Amino acid sequence: MSEDCIFCKIIAGEIPAKVVYESANVIAFLDIHPMAEGHTLVVSKEHYATLLDFPEDQLGPFFADLQKVAALLKEKLEADGFNILQNNFPAAGQGVDHFHYHILPRKEGDKVLRLPPVNNSITGDQLDEILEKLK
Amino acid sequence: MSEDCIFCKIIAGEIPAKVVYESANVIAFLDIHPMAEGHTLVVSKEHYATLLDFPEDQLGPFFADLQKVAALLKEKLEADGFNILQNNFPAAGQGVDHFHYHILPRKEGDKVLRLPPVNNSITGDQLDEILEKLK
Repeated sequence: MSEDCIFCKIIAGEIPAKVVYESANVIAFLDIHPMAEGHTLVVSKEHYATLLDFPEDQLGPFFADLQKVAALLKEKLEADGFNILQNNFPAAGQGVDHFHYHILPRKEGDKVLRLPPVNNSITGDQLDEILEKLK
Repeated sequence: MSEDCIFCKIIAGEIPAKVVYESANVIAFLDIHPMAEGHTLVVSKEHYATLLDFPEDQLGPFFADLQKVAALLKEKLEADGFNILQNNFPAAGQGVDHFHYHILPRKEGDKVLRLPPVNNSITGDQLDEILEKLK
């Protein structure tokens, strides 16, 4: 548990949450500022900041739980699809410094998620430059 | 391999791609319509449509590879953060019917990802109704 972490306090039962699923490793609850009906956060019970800190051997169990929550949301809310989203580090919009995934249930034509615009300033040559940096 | 699947053709070497990482289970390549510098797709070598079709016992290896690709992108591109995004089913914007994750490297203040607006039409009472549906 990390001091002053709101998700750790929810896990400890010190702050209430609308829990939709719980296992040994995760807790999943409704986002109180939903971006879609049934917007749910899947949160690891252990405190880690980002995907880069998360233990590799815990990835399988975490995503097995996330898969179960996604299936539950899709079935019970009769969603047509869903987005999985994780923000890592403040530059990417991470608001709470505790490993968590968003699930956004979607309906046909709901226009919920505005995908980022394609960055047309990046050309094929620049892709090769980027590829070079990654080698 | 699925007929007429562009990702299966990339995996089979029939269509070229700017590959940044490859393992027994995944291939990762630059998105040719990048939404950010270094926008990368992490694609399972086996053809599955969505997260709901993906075998539970393969989740650990897949996300271990995804974690490695995210670390590579962050380090080599000197990114300040990154978003992980997966669209499941056409209603959620899934464009290619083959299990894949987007990684969007981010820099401070880049304004790349426009997060969906908060849906203020959902109230606390409605959260309870939604929770009820999920029981």
